[in-house]
Amino acid sequence: MDADAALASAEPDTRGRIVATAERLFRQIGYQKTTVADIAKALRMSPANVYRFFDSKKAINEVVAERLMREVEGALEAIACQKAPAAVRLRDMIATMHRMNAALYTDELRMHEMVERALSESWQVVHGHLERKNAIFQRVVGDGIETGEFASTDPVIASRCVQVALIRFCHPALLVQCAQEPGPSLDQMTEFILAGLGWRAELPAKKRTEPRQSKANSRAV
Amino acid sequence: MDADAALASAEPDTRGRIVATAERLFRQIGYQKTTVADIAKALRMSPANVYRFFDSKKAINEVVAERLMREVEGALEAIACQKAPAAVRLRDMIATMHRMNAALYTDELRMHEMVERALSESWQVVHGHLERKNAIFQRVVGDGIETGEFASTDPVIASRCVQVALIRFCHPALLVQCAQEPGPSLDQMTEFILAGLGWRAELPAKKRTEPRQSKANSRAV
Repeated sequence: MDADAALASAEPDTRGRIVATAERLFRQIGYQKTTVADIAKALRMSPANVYRFFDSKKAINEVVAERLMREVEGALEAIACQKAPAAVRLRDMIATMHRMNAALYTDELRMHEMVERALSESWQVVHGHLERKNAIFQRVVGDGIETGEFASTDPVIASRCVQVALIRFCHPALLVQCAQEPGPSLDQMTEFILAGLGWRAELPAKKRTEPRQSKANSRAV
Repeated sequence: MDADAALASAEPDTRGRIVATAERLFRQIGYQKTTVADIAKALRMSPANVYRFFDSKKAINEVVAERLMREVEGALEAIACQKAPAAVRLRDMIATMHRMNAALYTDELRMHEMVERALSESWQVVHGHLERKNAIFQRVVGDGIETGEFASTDPVIASRCVQVALIRFCHPALLVQCAQEPGPSLDQMTEFILAGLGWRAELPAKKRTEPRQSKANSRAV
């Protein structure tokens, strides 16, 4: 059982190679057409070996989908951490999210199929992504409320509204279905969202410094 | 050819009966399971007779889907015509639209299947609905801009933003996918949208009366 022992010690590495190879094949020949046997063959291992790491192609897809979603989250997080007014960061986050999603879902139609499958079969992966993304947005919206940049009072509700208002520009099915529909540009929608947050280009003369009820609430969520 | 002649003279009536029967069967046994033969049998006519009026089940579905969409439009139109502040009418329109869509897509799961099919196969029907719905929203948003109730300046862009912000509460797939997700309630989203329009509960002291550039544009669309 030398080969098995070697596999076991190289487990994280093998998992990573399976995921990377699956992602490459999903991009090249599509999710549906890729079989576990194809993935195994490309890795010069038996399908049984792949099944030692993943129960099913669906399980591999979930890791691929999550990896792609974490890339988007990483880019958003990097912008959220910048020292800039909340509105500036939000604009940048929205543009970045849309650019990365559009590249994934419309430029690479085969990845679209893969993500659609995750949406219908692996909602918990999507749910985790939405929650992590929301936490990042909530922090920036909360910053804007604290400095008085946004007139909104509740960062929890406000950031959820921002997310919902952006579905048209994030959801793979809608990106395709609505592509030909007249509609606001992403920039127009972004300004509408900032207005929804009660954005004031000029900060009010007196900045509030005492802790707010709504902010205390948001921390508790 | 007596029977055919009778059919020809009763054409609008027969079309209507086919559509009504198809809708009943779609509700009862689902879109996919209903065949043109089932529809014909329920009407005590031959499938060939049904095909004299409709090329395919898809063509029947388009009429059924459009009829349902026109019902929503009729309800929105009735609210839009009321004498009430624009914000009051918008709130009512949004609540009504959501109530009617939710009844259709989530309470009656079989109608959901039918509308999903229209979304994927008959986009022009959906497109027509979106455009008619948008025209109604645009009129009310335009009224609000004219009276100074909304600070937005362009009713064309503003009403499109309102529509896009509401997709989560209108699109059949999203109504199902997002049902379990935390998110703003429809009321919270409605208030966010009104803020996006720059809603002022108190009208500005001086109401603008001169015609505006942006309004002239909107009429031309």
